Amino acid sequence: MKKLEDRLLSIFKLDKTGTIFYFDASTTTTKSLLRVLCRWRGSIWKATLKQLCVWTILYMAISILYRYVMSESWQRYFEALSAYLNNDINTMIPLTFMLGFFVASVVKRWSLMLNSFGWIDDSAIAIATFIRDNDEDTLMLKRNLIRYMVLNQALVLRDISIQVRYRFPTLETLVAAGLLTTEELKKLISIPDVYSQYWLPIQWVCDHLVKAHQDGKIKGEKLLDTIIMKVQKFREGLSELLRYDWVPIPLVYPQVILFSVRLYFGICLISRQFLLPNHAKNKDSVDLWIPFTTMLQFIVYMGWMKVAEALMNPLGEDDDDLECNYVIDKNLITGLTIVDHNVQDTPPLRKDAFWG
Amino acid sequence: MKKLEDRLLSIFKLDKTGTIFYFDASTTTTKSLLRVLCRWRGSIWKATLKQLCVWTILYMAISILYRYVMSESWQRYFEALSAYLNNDINTMIPLTFMLGFFVASVVKRWSLMLNSFGWIDDSAIAIATFIRDNDEDTLMLKRNLIRYMVLNQALVLRDISIQVRYRFPTLETLVAAGLLTTEELKKLISIPDVYSQYWLPIQWVCDHLVKAHQDGKIKGEKLLDTIIMKVQKFREGLSELLRYDWVPIPLVYPQVILFSVRLYFGICLISRQFLLPNHAKNKDSVDLWIPFTTMLQFIVYMGWMKVAEALMNPLGEDDDDLECNYVIDKNLITGLTIVDHNVQDTPPLRKDAFWG
Amino acid sequence: MKKLEDRLLSIFKLDKTGTIFYFDASTTTTKSLLRVLCRWRGSIWKATLKQLCVWTILYMAISILYRYVMSESWQRYFEALSAYLNNDINTMIPLTFMLGFFVASVVKRWSLMLNSFGWIDDSAIAIATFIRDNDEDTLMLKRNLIRYMVLNQALVLRDISIQVRYRFPTLETLVAAGLLTTEELKKLISIPDVYSQYWLPIQWVCDHLVKAHQDGKIKGEKLLDTIIMKVQKFREGLSELLRYDWVPIPLVYPQVILFSVRLYFGICLISRQFLLPNHAKNKDSVDLWIPFTTMLQFIVYMGWMKVAEALMNPLGEDDDDLECNYVIDKNLITGLTIVDHNVQDTPPLRKDAFWG
Amino acid sequence: MKKLEDRLLSIFKLDKTGTIFYFDASTTTTKSLLRVLCRWRGSIWKATLKQLCVWTILYMAISILYRYVMSESWQRYFEALSAYLNNDINTMIPLTFMLGFFVASVVKRWSLMLNSFGWIDDSAIAIATFIRDNDEDTLMLKRNLIRYMVLNQALVLRDISIQVRYRFPTLETLVAAGLLTTEELKKLISIPDVYSQYWLPIQWVCDHLVKAHQDGKIKGEKLLDTIIMKVQKFREGLSELLRYDWVPIPLVYPQVILFSVRLYFGICLISRQFLLPNHAKNKDSVDLWIPFTTMLQFIVYMGWMKVAEALMNPLGEDDDDLECNYVIDKNLITGLTIVDHNVQDTPPLRKDAFWG
Amino acid sequence: MKKLEDRLLSIFKLDKTGTIFYFDASTTTTKSLLRVLCRWRGSIWKATLKQLCVWTILYMAISILYRYVMSESWQRYFEALSAYLNNDINTMIPLTFMLGFFVASVVKRWSLMLNSFGWIDDSAIAIATFIRDNDEDTLMLKRNLIRYMVLNQALVLRDISIQVRYRFPTLETLVAAGLLTTEELKKLISIPDVYSQYWLPIQWVCDHLVKAHQDGKIKGEKLLDTIIMKVQKFREGLSELLRYDWVPIPLVYPQVILFSVRLYFGICLISRQFLLPNHAKNKDSVDLWIPFTTMLQFIVYMGWMKVAEALMNPLGEDDDDLECNYVIDKNLITGLTIVDHNVQDTPPLRKDAFWG
Repeated sequence: MKKLEDRLLSIFKLDKTGTIFYFDASTTTTKSLLRVLCRWRGSIWKATLKQLCVWTILYMAISILYRYVMSESWQRYFEALSAYLNNDINTMIPLTFMLGFFVASVVKRWSLMLNSFGWIDDSAIAIATFIRDNDEDTLMLKRNLIRYMVLNQALVLRDISIQVRYRFPTLETLVAAGLLTTEELKKLISIPDVYSQYWLPIQWVCDHLVKAHQDGKIKGEKLLDTIIMKVQKFREGLSELLRYDWVPIPLVYPQVILFSVRLYFGICLISRQFLLPNHAKNKDSVDLWIPFTTMLQFIVYMGWMKVAEALMNPLGEDDDDLECNYVIDKNLITGLTIVDHNVQDTPPLRKDAFWG
Repeated sequence: MKKLEDRLLSIFKLDKTGTIFYFDASTTTTKSLLRVLCRWRGSIWKATLKQLCVWTILYMAISILYRYVMSESWQRYFEALSAYLNNDINTMIPLTFMLGFFVASVVKRWSLMLNSFGWIDDSAIAIATFIRDNDEDTLMLKRNLIRYMVLNQALVLRDISIQVRYRFPTLETLVAAGLLTTEELKKLISIPDVYSQYWLPIQWVCDHLVKAHQDGKIKGEKLLDTIIMKVQKFREGLSELLRYDWVPIPLVYPQVILFSVRLYFGICLISRQFLLPNHAKNKDSVDLWIPFTTMLQFIVYMGWMKVAEALMNPLGEDDDDLECNYVIDKNLITGLTIVDHNVQDTPPLRKDAFWG
Repeated sequence: MKKLEDRLLSIFKLDKTGTIFYFDASTTTTKSLLRVLCRWRGSIWKATLKQLCVWTILYMAISILYRYVMSESWQRYFEALSAYLNNDINTMIPLTFMLGFFVASVVKRWSLMLNSFGWIDDSAIAIATFIRDNDEDTLMLKRNLIRYMVLNQALVLRDISIQVRYRFPTLETLVAAGLLTTEELKKLISIPDVYSQYWLPIQWVCDHLVKAHQDGKIKGEKLLDTIIMKVQKFREGLSELLRYDWVPIPLVYPQVILFSVRLYFGICLISRQFLLPNHAKNKDSVDLWIPFTTMLQFIVYMGWMKVAEALMNPLGEDDDDLECNYVIDKNLITGLTIVDHNVQDTPPLRKDAFWG
Repeated sequence: MKKLEDRLLSIFKLDKTGTIFYFDASTTTTKSLLRVLCRWRGSIWKATLKQLCVWTILYMAISILYRYVMSESWQRYFEALSAYLNNDINTMIPLTFMLGFFVASVVKRWSLMLNSFGWIDDSAIAIATFIRDNDEDTLMLKRNLIRYMVLNQALVLRDISIQVRYRFPTLETLVAAGLLTTEELKKLISIPDVYSQYWLPIQWVCDHLVKAHQDGKIKGEKLLDTIIMKVQKFREGLSELLRYDWVPIPLVYPQVILFSVRLYFGICLISRQFLLPNHAKNKDSVDLWIPFTTMLQFIVYMGWMKVAEALMNPLGEDDDDLECNYVIDKNLITGLTIVDHNVQDTPPLRKDAFWG
Repeated sequence: MKKLEDRLLSIFKLDKTGTIFYFDASTTTTKSLLRVLCRWRGSIWKATLKQLCVWTILYMAISILYRYVMSESWQRYFEALSAYLNNDINTMIPLTFMLGFFVASVVKRWSLMLNSFGWIDDSAIAIATFIRDNDEDTLMLKRNLIRYMVLNQALVLRDISIQVRYRFPTLETLVAAGLLTTEELKKLISIPDVYSQYWLPIQWVCDHLVKAHQDGKIKGEKLLDTIIMKVQKFREGLSELLRYDWVPIPLVYPQVILFSVRLYFGICLISRQFLLPNHAKNKDSVDLWIPFTTMLQFIVYMGWMKVAEALMNPLGEDDDDLECNYVIDKNLITGLTIVDHNVQDTPPLRKDAFWG
């Protein structure tokens, strides 16, 4: 019970922080803008800094090679090569378009995944509304239904999200976390088909619901049907998540994008070198040594691509990824709190302030 | 009651204004075009003017530095730098594409949020239709149901929208506004889980509905189910709003865009300087001192980005943001008016004008 | 009755024309292409001609000023300015992208509005199918239900569409048109909340349906529920229309687009002037006086923007806008015809031609 | 009956061909690629060849005029004009973007139309499942229901698709085709409102279904409701088709696109002429007489636009258009076959091969 | 039975691999990036390597011809041609846009197809929940229902996917695989209409369900309706798949894209030749013999197009295509396992760990 309360607390904190951040950003002033730009966690800076350093070191190495090591004829050749590569690079590798369209389709997929994540409150309210008794047996029933649904979610997410896998490396850890009893575990592992294992808790839920109807705890066939439909909607969302995991975007698509971005900046290592002034045609051009503009370009494009990478695997361990463990805890707490609510607690009817 | 009527009035006024504005714009004549372009509130002008001034002052400062402070060799170097930066800037920072795709995905998200905002009339009509008695008790029931639903909306919006938070800083202010009784408040704060607090009023609504069915006020299990489905749809919309708030677009995406736009115009401070005619290669070029075209570009791009900023946080305090408080009031007034409607008031059947 | 028949006729005519036009265009031959290009009503030509004339006159005026009024030093300055503006204009104002993305999002919104417009046939068939008696009272009931639904639509469209407002400037005109009786009008104006006024006729419909169920005219709770769901779907569509009207696309977005297009062609007035040959660097260049290519560009871009303008306010008075009054009439006629259909008129069962 | 069988045969053939084509293309080898590129029917080649010839002839005529007919001063002027036009053409007419966005929105609309086309199998299975008797009367009923639904589809498509109009020029031809009896025809033409005529057969279907329920042939109100919902879904699809026909994309949009493409290639007739070498600045440039690259560009752009044209009117007579008549036949055959299926024919239960 | 177990095993293996791959990619580190880039199966490398080789050989052949075979005047002509082609190629063939928009629309279609693929677990849980008896007869019934649904899927996929066709070349092979009994086969082939054949197993399912309701095995009309709705949803998905197969994207669209890409690189064979230094204007330019940059461009564009090709026919035999046979097996195993689950196996209610 302790553990649960701790989690509860951490959720509140997280929730508050989230809210505070949002409030700050809700008017678009310069200050809030700066705050958005300066955040480190999950930011463009964190995402690109390391790679930018590596790239810059490589650039400097090539620069030194060209200026101090090469003979003059080699220098000439290097300059010609640099000019040749610089010439076609932007029509050759249409980064902007590829990234634009790729990010658009990945954002879409991401928001579909988000919607099918499985939020328990819909089913929990239906259960609490239509199963109205409050004796210990019925309460036990209602709490068990919630637990089975969260168990189902945990089973599915264990196979998709590495965060959840870390938390529940084996089925036994689910028992330790209180989501599963040893008796239930035995029944679960007696099922040969992995995929059916996922849905076994949902079958238990449906079975208990039908029994509750037969026992007269749910009054009416239509109401039973309504609860089961809500539970099935929860399950279907998780089933869709599994499907997104099984059938990812065909490998060629991200490969083309990842390859193109790296290739582009690989070529830039040569094509964007400052040529020695006495060789350069345009004598006015500056020799800054450090490729300032290309570095900015690196940040912009790599940052853009990070968006795609972060959204392609939204269940991973990156800073921006969905916190699956948090969702499991929230579902458990909210679900139990909702079904614990006693219908006798509903406030009696009163005339409202606008009466008359 | 007074307060309510005042609000009512202000709503009518707002409504009328809205209508009038719309009527004007409904034929696309030059005059209506001018009116659209000249509006200040929530306009491109208001959004960009201050930043444009700052930018222009910085530009002028650099210009004076370059013309009157720098030595000639420094001037040469500055000119080379300016040319170097001006050269690559458009391929380096593909603003048009990034903004185009980003605004497209933000507009989509915005219209999804708008749809899930929670409008009460659907549920209110269902309640008024299927709970047909008109004695004081039943009327009290119907009015309470509406009030609970609006309360639910207010509770959710308090945590998302800063406007609503200003209006209802504490739960006690909800009591003062007549949305909550002190008795109900006590029950509400006795719930430990914030998230479940949101849904408690909806549980009360469902509970009262089931009781009304048991008391024979709602005639038929299917009709009960229909009303509850409408109420749940209202709640699901608000639940989706919360989800959009919890899982914002990954930070990297807006950061990349915001950073790129600022970077672009930062570079323009140097690259778009008018070079002294005797140094410039193209002797015909004008020296306007004020970077007229870049200023226009500033307005266009910053305005475009303001679209994205305004739509990313549609519940904030910007001029274009949704007026959440207005929606809460409207829902309360409309809901109460609809359920107050007495079925005995339905006009009797008459032959229509086209009979025969 | 006369009036109704006239309208009926005009509908047929309109319908036929529509069909004929469509048939012509259904094979994409050169002839049908020419017909599409040459249509005047609602065409690109009509939309841009006036503005093009104004622009050309301004261009000519500046041209004459430059050639005959200015001193030579002023001419030199003008030429430098023209070159300066011509240089950056396309990267400065990325018209193509802005228009492309804006039109795409506006087209989407437009097709959503179209779908939620409110077509009565679904509800009418449900009413005619499930309320089967054909005595005068029941017929009166069925006709009244249709009339109330059309009345609801007229009330909503009056506040959104200026066409409908012209046709029904006051509520009394609705009485004159036969959509409302004076008795009903009194009840309608006794409702203080405008928004609830819209939905009052729908409440009447629901009320009559519930009564019809109680009287045994609708046999079965599920069937009652089905009819009410259809009626509510009709109402929800109109409710969505109102919402699109209340929460338009944030002003900044169209303002940025409108401003950019005008700005672009404003700058073209100077930047696209033909410079005097003896000053121009490229001596071969022609001096056409009339800026032929820029005029074509004007037509193309203004035409493209007209698409956005026409679709932003689809309920206005432009040639391409939805003919709201026609929809109201069609709904009334079709609805009445469908419910007038006597079930005794259904042809008896016969063996079909393929029996065997 | 003969006719039906012939059609049946032709359907099989068509089906097989379709399948075979698809199989070939299912692995993306060079051979299958060539087959796709070389197909003539509905191809880019067929779509653009004629227009390309006309364009090339015009080009050659202008070329000859320029080379052999013009005086030298005219030639100079022509050359200047050609250079002037060639200069701005790509920024002036942003074909790529316009086509890209237009085709995207047209493809979307097309796939929406495809979905709402009306496929009968859903309703047919519902009818066959829930109306279980197999005496001659019930069989007649079931077959009649199918026929009425197909009749409804034929009536709607007659007014939208020119193919179907050719097949059924008058209502009498529907009688000849066995879709309508003369008795039913009389009832149909006695309805004054065209639009209601479409839905009359659906009203007959609903009426027969309600009667079947009253006669005890459909056991249960909910099952009756389910069948009627399926039939209504079929009807709604057709109703949406009609709506797409009535409210086409506003004329300005396709007009802008069609005009721009033609204008572009019209200008190319002059701007892409090979200038005489002794006048040309770049003496190295080839003089090919035939504008090879512009011809390829013509094929690419015109082909792209053909996509838009083909998808804008998917019910026309072009090669790629939906074969409406085939759909009508298929619906009739499939529907009748499904309802003919005798429930006594369902195979008895057997233990399956994996019984454990 | 053996065969089934083998398949079971292979499924587990495949599942694990999939999971492992995903886990690796879930944090976007350099290592995981390299792994993504280096995969061969279904990769950009495998897709483009062969074609790149052919292209390079052709390029070298032309290069040798130009350098050693041609006379000097021919060389001059070749150089002029190369320059002429190189000039316009990028505006002439707007590959980036065409590919961007085409891939976007193909990705959309692909994800729609994926969703309508037919997953049995929804129906299987409904069957297992509502048909609760566990005697041999009922078990046989439940297993038969699952088998019929999988049979339906196999029948449909046989005609769409070449993988499934290879596995089940004739209907007899379905008998051998245990999906069909010879008795059922006879009934199946007695149906004249191919299309109706697909749906016959679904009719059997519906028929058995109605009978089970009549025998009291399904308790309640609403529950029967719910199961049948789930089964129909399964069938509708497959029906949509068939429709996507019948009405492919109009041929012109892919043809334009395929043609344009090939044409572009065909022209590059000439336009991207390194010209002999003494003829070239820019004497500094390198002569690399091998067209390094164009080869990279080839990989990028061909890879991008492979995305479109792979997604256009997702049921083919390419590496990235959906493994239809695997889906059929999984559906059979999961379905049987779920319905085999005995309701007596549901664990009894226990107080959970958080009780209290």
